[in-house]
Amino acid sequence: MSERLADGLDRRQFLTSAAFAGAGIAAWPSLLPAGDRSGVADAGAIRDRTERILAAAARPALRQELLPASPLTIERVELLKNGPHFLVRVRTSDGAEGLSVAHGRILSTVYPHFVSVVAPLFVGMDARRVEENVEAVYRTPSHYKWQGLAFWACVAAVELAMLDLIGKVTSRSLTDYFGDGRVTDQIAVYRASGTRGNAPEEEVDFFRQQIEEIGARAIKYRLGARMHYDEASTRRDRALIPLMRDAFPDVTLYADANSSYDVPTAIEIAHLMEQYDYAFLEEPVAFDHYDETRAVTSRVAIPIAGGEQEFSLRHFLWQIDHEVLDLVQPDIFYFGGMTRSLRVGRGAQAVGMTCTPHISGEGLGFLYAVLLAASMPNAGPYHEYKGVEADLPAEPIGGTFIPENGILRVPTGPGLGFRLDPDFLARAEIVR
Amino acid sequence: MSERLADGLDRRQFLTSAAFAGAGIAAWPSLLPAGDRSGVADAGAIRDRTERILAAAARPALRQELLPASPLTIERVELLKNGPHFLVRVRTSDGAEGLSVAHGRILSTVYPHFVSVVAPLFVGMDARRVEENVEAVYRTPSHYKWQGLAFWACVAAVELAMLDLIGKVTSRSLTDYFGDGRVTDQIAVYRASGTRGNAPEEEVDFFRQQIEEIGARAIKYRLGARMHYDEASTRRDRALIPLMRDAFPDVTLYADANSSYDVPTAIEIAHLMEQYDYAFLEEPVAFDHYDETRAVTSRVAIPIAGGEQEFSLRHFLWQIDHEVLDLVQPDIFYFGGMTRSLRVGRGAQAVGMTCTPHISGEGLGFLYAVLLAASMPNAGPYHEYKGVEADLPAEPIGGTFIPENGILRVPTGPGLGFRLDPDFLARAEIVR
Repeated sequence: MSERLADGLDRRQFLTSAAFAGAGIAAWPSLLPAGDRSGVADAGAIRDRTERILAAAARPALRQELLPASPLTIERVELLKNGPHFLVRVRTSDGAEGLSVAHGRILSTVYPHFVSVVAPLFVGMDARRVEENVEAVYRTPSHYKWQGLAFWACVAAVELAMLDLIGKVTSRSLTDYFGDGRVTDQIAVYRASGTRGNAPEEEVDFFRQQIEEIGARAIKYRLGARMHYDEASTRRDRALIPLMRDAFPDVTLYADANSSYDVPTAIEIAHLMEQYDYAFLEEPVAFDHYDETRAVTSRVAIPIAGGEQEFSLRHFLWQIDHEVLDLVQPDIFYFGGMTRSLRVGRGAQAVGMTCTPHISGEGLGFLYAVLLAASMPNAGPYHEYKGVEADLPAEPIGGTFIPENGILRVPTGPGLGFRLDPDFLARAEIVR
Repeated sequence: MSERLADGLDRRQFLTSAAFAGAGIAAWPSLLPAGDRSGVADAGAIRDRTERILAAAARPALRQELLPASPLTIERVELLKNGPHFLVRVRTSDGAEGLSVAHGRILSTVYPHFVSVVAPLFVGMDARRVEENVEAVYRTPSHYKWQGLAFWACVAAVELAMLDLIGKVTSRSLTDYFGDGRVTDQIAVYRASGTRGNAPEEEVDFFRQQIEEIGARAIKYRLGARMHYDEASTRRDRALIPLMRDAFPDVTLYADANSSYDVPTAIEIAHLMEQYDYAFLEEPVAFDHYDETRAVTSRVAIPIAGGEQEFSLRHFLWQIDHEVLDLVQPDIFYFGGMTRSLRVGRGAQAVGMTCTPHISGEGLGFLYAVLLAASMPNAGPYHEYKGVEADLPAEPIGGTFIPENGILRVPTGPGLGFRLDPDFLARAEIVR
C-alpha cells in the first residue's frame, strides 16, 4: 500500500483503509473511486458536501466492538419454502444458525439464481464480516451486472440471516449493532393504502377503519395512476387531497404518486398538498428521472421522498448530494439488506436529511424496517406498518408486532428478534 | 386530451402524441415527463440539448410504413431449451412464428421469471407494436421495479422474437425496419480478449492469432483488475499499453477497464493510451459513478466509452446529455432489446455521438449487434465479434457469420436473418 501511496495514485483510498483497519474492515472501494481530490477538484467531481456524504456512508454499519471474537464461518446457506413463504438459513461450521424470512414473491421466480449463484458465494465466508461479504458478492466476478431487484433481494435474504446469526451468537438485538446503537424503544407507524381508482370517500372509509384498528397517527395513500396519470386520476387526486385533510384533521398525511406525473403536474399537486399541510409527496415523477425530480423538489416546499427503485448505492448518495430528494427511502429487500440501507441513512444524516426505510410487504419487511429505524438518529417520525404475512407463524421476542395506539415496541430478542413456529420451519422444504 | 391541454398541464406530451399518432404509435411517456418547458425552464430541467436528445430517442425505432397491415396477435410465447441454449418462440393466432436465441446464462437462473411473469404479459398483444409492447410490459403493473439484467434479458428475448416474426411475415430483413433503414451491407469487426492477469506478451500472442484467424483490424483488451486495481494490474497495464501498439502498429486499439480505477489513475492510464493512439477507453471508473466518469471524460482526449450496465433509458440519455460518456454501448440483452438500444443510439446521434451496441457473448448477440449497427448512421467503425456459440447450429441467410478480412456481410434474410437447424429446434424442450 505504501508504494501505491508513494505513486500519489490512491491516497484517499489508503487513508480510508487505514481508518477502517482498526475495526477489521477493509475500505469500501465502491464509495472511494474518486481518489485524491487534489487531482480532480476543478473537474467538479468532489466537493466538500460530497466528501461528507461519502465518508458517512463508508463508515462500518455495524458496531465492530460488539462482534464475536471468533470467526463465524458459513458452512451452508439454505433456501427453504413453506407455502408461499421463503426462508433463508445460514449455518456455521460450529452449528450456529441464523434465519430470515425472504421476499417470497421475488424468490418465487428467481430461486434458481439464489440457489445456484448467490448462496454458494457466501459459503466459507466469515459471517461477522457482513458488509465485506455483501460487497464481495456484488463485485465477484461480475455480479455487479445483476444489480437490481432479482439480485439484491437474494443477497438481502442472506444478509438478514447473517445478521440474525451474529445476534443469536452474542445474544444481542441487532439494534445494538446498527449505527451507534439503539436510539429508541418505540416506533410510531403509518398505514398505507395500495388502492387506486376507488372513490375518494371509499379511501377515507378505508383509513377510518385502519386508524381505528391500530391507532395510527399517520397515513399514506396513492395519487396518480402509477407511471402515468390521466383525467380520471387527476380528478380523484384533486378531490382526495382536501377530503383526507377534512376527514383526518390531526393525522400526518403522506401521498405516493408512484412516478405518475410530469413536472408541471407534480408541482401543481405538490402545491395543493402544501395547502393542506401534507408531510411528504413520494415519487412525483418517474423514479429514474433525476433532473425532473430535482426540478420538482427545488420548486416546492413539501418534502419530496423517493428511492424505492434505487439499486446503486452511489446513485442514492448522488441523489442526496445533488438534492434530488428531501427524504430517502431505501427498500431493505430491493436494495440488498439492512447494512446497505443504513449506509444510505448515514449519507443522508451527513447533510441533515431524513431516511425512512421502505418495505415491500413480503417476508417480515416491517420488522426489519423497525429494527433499522430504531438505530437511526435521522429516521422519519413514522414507519410503514404492514404486519406479519398471512399464515406466517412468527412472533416478536420482547416487543410487539401489533401496534398499540399507533406504536410498536421494538423487539429486544437476539438477532432479528422474532421466533418462528418450529413446526412451520420443520415442514419447510429445502429448495434445490 | 384537449381538456388537459386547456389546463396547460401537458402540452408537450400532447404534442408528441400528436406527432406519433399518424404512425399508430402512442407517445413514449417514459421520455416525456418533463412537461411544458415554460413551467420549468428556470429550474434547469429542460435545455435545448436535452429536448433534442429526448425527441430523437422518442422517435419510433421501426419504420412504421413497412409493418404488415393486419395485426399479428400473439397467441403463445414459449421458452425452449436445448442443452445450454434457450430459444424463444412467438406464435400468432394465424400460425406465423418468430424465433430468437436468448441469453442462455441469464435465462438458466431466471427462467421461472420468464415463464410465469414475462411471457404471459405478451400474450394477446399485437406483435407489430413491438415498442409499445415492451414499454407496456415494463410499466404494468409494477415491473419497472424489476429493471435490471434479470428482467430486461427476458424482455429482450421476446422482443427479438417479435422482430423476427415481423420480418418473416413481410419477408424483409430487420435492417430495413430499424431507424431509417440499412445504411451498410458490411460491418467491420473487432476481437476482444476476456483475459486479465496474464503476461503482456501472452496477450499479444493471443491477438496475433485472432487477427490471423479473422483479419480483424481492431482489437480490445482488458485493463485493471475488474471493479478494482492493484499493483500487479497497474504494472501489467503500463506494460501492455505501449507493447500492444508496438506489436500492432496499424490496428485500431481499444481497452476496457471494467470499472477498475479511481479518477486520478483513470486519467493517468487514459493519457498513456493517448500517447499510443488508442481509440477508446471503456468504463475507466465504477460504471454507476457518473460524476467521477465525467471527471475523467472532461480531462482526457481519448474517447470514454460505457453503458453496458445501464438499464434505464432515461439514465442513458442523461449520460449523453451531461457528457458523462463520449461513446455509448447499450447491451442488446441487458438493456431489453434492439429497439431500446436503437433509441439510445438515436439520442446519441442527436448530439453527434457514436453508439456501438454491446454484446455479451451468449445467444446470437453478435448477429443482433450487426443488424442494429447496419441501420445506425452513428454506429462505431468496428463492432465486437464473438461468433456463434459452440454447438448452436445457426447459419446466416444472405450474409456471413465468419468475418473475411475482418468484415462480416450483413445477413439479408427475413427477420433476424438466421436459420436454425430444424432438428435442433425439434429436440428442444419447452420450459415450464
